[in-house]
Amino acid sequence: MSNPVLVEITRGGIVESVHRGSIAVLDAKGAVKLALGDVESPVYSRSSLKPMQAMPMVESGAAEAFGLSDEEVALACASHSGEPMHTTRVAAWLARLGLDESDLACGAHASRYEPVAEAMIRRGEKPSRLFNNCSGKHAGFLTVARHWDIATKGYEQPNHPVQRAVATTLSELCDAGELPFGIDGCAAPNFATSLTQFARAAARMAAPDKLERRRGEAARRIIASMIAHPELVSGTGRVCATLMRASRGRAAVKAGAEGFYAAWIPERGLGIAIKIDDGAGRAAETVIAAALESLNLLDDSEPAHSILRAPIRNTRGAVVGERRPSSALADLRLV
Amino acid sequence: MSNPVLVEITRGGIVESVHRGSIAVLDAKGAVKLALGDVESPVYSRSSLKPMQAMPMVESGAAEAFGLSDEEVALACASHSGEPMHTTRVAAWLARLGLDESDLACGAHASRYEPVAEAMIRRGEKPSRLFNNCSGKHAGFLTVARHWDIATKGYEQPNHPVQRAVATTLSELCDAGELPFGIDGCAAPNFATSLTQFARAAARMAAPDKLERRRGEAARRIIASMIAHPELVSGTGRVCATLMRASRGRAAVKAGAEGFYAAWIPERGLGIAIKIDDGAGRAAETVIAAALESLNLLDDSEPAHSILRAPIRNTRGAVVGERRPSSALADLRLV
Repeated sequence: MSNPVLVEITRGGIVESVHRGSIAVLDAKGAVKLALGDVESPVYSRSSLKPMQAMPMVESGAAEAFGLSDEEVALACASHSGEPMHTTRVAAWLARLGLDESDLACGAHASRYEPVAEAMIRRGEKPSRLFNNCSGKHAGFLTVARHWDIATKGYEQPNHPVQRAVATTLSELCDAGELPFGIDGCAAPNFATSLTQFARAAARMAAPDKLERRRGEAARRIIASMIAHPELVSGTGRVCATLMRASRGRAAVKAGAEGFYAAWIPERGLGIAIKIDDGAGRAAETVIAAALESLNLLDDSEPAHSILRAPIRNTRGAVVGERRPSSALADLRLV
Repeated sequence: MSNPVLVEITRGGIVESVHRGSIAVLDAKGAVKLALGDVESPVYSRSSLKPMQAMPMVESGAAEAFGLSDEEVALACASHSGEPMHTTRVAAWLARLGLDESDLACGAHASRYEPVAEAMIRRGEKPSRLFNNCSGKHAGFLTVARHWDIATKGYEQPNHPVQRAVATTLSELCDAGELPFGIDGCAAPNFATSLTQFARAAARMAAPDKLERRRGEAARRIIASMIAHPELVSGTGRVCATLMRASRGRAAVKAGAEGFYAAWIPERGLGIAIKIDDGAGRAAETVIAAALESLNLLDDSEPAHSILRAPIRNTRGAVVGERRPSSALADLRLV
């Protein structure tokens, strides 16, 4: 059995490439509102997991103890572009913990925001670990370790208490037992869940009144912080920011590598989990936009709708094709 | 019906993403030596088509009239990285035609070779159209137009005699009628063929003795020029160059956008055409390497074998997974 085609890439009159995938939408009671394709096999949610990975930071009281702002909570959930708004805030946050970028376990990579990356090349500057898109998540892990007054070194190891706390929280939110894990691009463990497990966890975070009080408060703050600071969760012009702005505060969304995408919908108490079989981010973007559109969560802004149906241009700027939802995806009805 | 999974991406103990696709291997008589997946639907071969698009340039006598070197013939088949070895040669070639980069219909994009791209940013230089990976192909089209003493302006239009000659030659090599086309990234038409049609055309080029004399000489020269100059067809460290070097002169290979890959095997008179459904270049690289390996065409060099089975590293450099042939692909027997 193969998953349905969700996204088509056209050129001229021909479908040039297709993307298969699956999507699960659940509510906080665990009721499946929509399931398309295989929603039961374990998959990595990659950076879409960051809001869950931030839960122990808030739930433990660490965020409060270190006076974290909502901006910093948003950065803990971010795959950021390494713009000054991101790197300066993470640096200041680490300084408040008595730490610096050398304490981050993630490697360095260039800023994903071209003007910054090019300016650094012109100045001959090498990116530090602060520029790693996960540096906020790592600062969040370090905040928990400092709050618990335990070793910060090795905080990214699967058996470190911070990662154990992430695993336990996620398992409880998912109604799952011990979850398998792999090592993410930033060196931290990433846990594999089914799409239904992930969407259930997201739905519970989106309906925090039904959670135990401290956990519910943590979930509420994390989702609200993401929604309040879309560009801190991603970056200037990025898809997550565009979709969150187009939802006018009604959805938190988070991309993950290898074609994962997730959404938290507080007003409906829904969680959404998407995985593109082949790992293509371009397809995951179309699917999350279609899911939000089907819930009437996108305003009429052009940038959001050009994620749903994206023109493909050649190097002269002429439109030569498009990326569009397949009929299976276009027929999706969630309202 | 969906195509078989050909490539798997793993992380930890889990298959994180999969790539489906199809492959056709034919000989010059049109006999199908291998067909896996859908090999009959029309697909764009994108830049894998360049050796066919170069045929009228040699067959018409234009290459001889303008004294093109084998290096220039290789560049006509190239998706080059925009290194000085490419851009200076295309510039000199255009000058010999009495033309310059403003006559190229392709748009500009940055060099794909990072040291060159970064050096240009540091110097504040903008890439010209010479840096377009297709600039050699376009110089080839212009060579035909100059040889025929017809308008060079509009040479990229589907109804221009140069493009009509490409269409006719390709149809004849394919045993096809009028082929549908779309507009490629570089503004030239790209024709859609089935994988069997493409592989048949490639096999005929790989067995030139069986073609009409002038056409056979053109095919022989084009394939020999690619094999003699792997880095001019691609660039420093690129997959096409690595695989051609590892074949020790026994295969010409050419990548195309959206997951196409092709090979011409003179010693066997075979043509190979590969299309990954979802357009992923990473998967097409694995499949072409597996196809060459199954024909015993790869030496023991590490770079070629790390295309076949590629470690996936995190930002700290640790191996966290791999890209590997699926069992269906690993079982492929072509020898």
